[in-house]
Amino acid sequence: MSEITAGMVKELREKTGAGMMDCKKALQESGGDVEEAITLLRKQGLAAAAKRAGRAANEGAVESYIHQGGKLGVLVEVNCETDFVARTDRFKQFARDVALNVAAMKPLYVSVDDVPEEYKDKERSIYAEQAKDRPEAAREKIVEGKLAKHLKEIALLEQPFFRDATEKTQRTMEQLRAEASAELGENITIRRFAIFQLGQ
Amino acid sequence: MSEITAGMVKELREKTGAGMMDCKKALQESGGDVEEAITLLRKQGLAAAAKRAGRAANEGAVESYIHQGGKLGVLVEVNCETDFVARTDRFKQFARDVALNVAAMKPLYVSVDDVPEEYKDKERSIYAEQAKDRPEAAREKIVEGKLAKHLKEIALLEQPFFRDATEKTQRTMEQLRAEASAELGENITIRRFAIFQLGQ
Repeated sequence: MSEITAGMVKELREKTGAGMMDCKKALQESGGDVEEAITLLRKQGLAAAAKRAGRAANEGAVESYIHQGGKLGVLVEVNCETDFVARTDRFKQFARDVALNVAAMKPLYVSVDDVPEEYKDKERSIYAEQAKDRPEAAREKIVEGKLAKHLKEIALLEQPFFRDATEKTQRTMEQLRAEASAELGENITIRRFAIFQLGQ
Repeated sequence: MSEITAGMVKELREKTGAGMMDCKKALQESGGDVEEAITLLRKQGLAAAAKRAGRAANEGAVESYIHQGGKLGVLVEVNCETDFVARTDRFKQFARDVALNVAAMKPLYVSVDDVPEEYKDKERSIYAEQAKDRPEAAREKIVEGKLAKHLKEIALLEQPFFRDATEKTQRTMEQLRAEASAELGENITIRRFAIFQLGQ
């Protein structure tokens, strides 16, 4: 079976606007064939994803949010496909929600795919040290489990949306993004963010 | 005569809040002795600078500016010494002016001192190529002259303040900073900025 790389998942996400896990699954099923993975996503009734296939998200908005009277500032870029959608209240609300969530949750990367190998290796070495008294056979699983959990905590798209009240109703930012994408009928992506905390 | 490094100039600027050229000159006169340079700045009637010597600028504000309805966004951190000054209208106005100027002038670095050697070497090689038909004796001077001019264009503090109408009345951002610092009686520094241009 061929290897599914982060780059392939990213390409498929950009082409379809579908969620990361859906893309990964489709690629695994297609044996790494991107075109077939698009077809698979289409067959699974992800019509919206299919409709958006191949359409680039180069429009959108840069949004800012200043917290605590200037002690914390956030800048985000959220993309869509047309200037028409960029001007809608629904899109603006999503961009605003992203900026607020970045200020509240302080992510380090947009998605798990964006985390550099160097960062992951450093984390792995910490978890390996913590697990050094555990049976050797179990160690790798413990380390990778802890890493996966940590990556979800630092990736914007995996973080919970702070406005959702309880754990039961809580969506991830990726779910919020997918909802906005479905409602607006365009591929919506979060491209980048910056956080300035005063004196840090 | 001892070498005046960018690091020494930076240290003296942080300790006194005096301008870059004043600090460089004082260090040249003191033969690189920082304490004596502080005394020299003091003797030159730069009482305000002396008063601010050694005081750290850790308070301040993060300010944002969104241009063209979201096509361009800017985030800046401006520091002062106390929360009291950070809350004044004068300080807020300066932070706002910095954000607006960053959006207008799109600097690459805060000060000339922040430009990495790598960047300078790359520029030098371009200017050297352009000057390859000039007499060898003149070449280095041409290259360094072009580099100095370019560095002033990309450094926020050396850029002109866009609100000043004519070249005659035009202040640099460093002059604007020094004025705010003198009026507020605190060391004021511009720490960092981020520029997000949609789709770039």
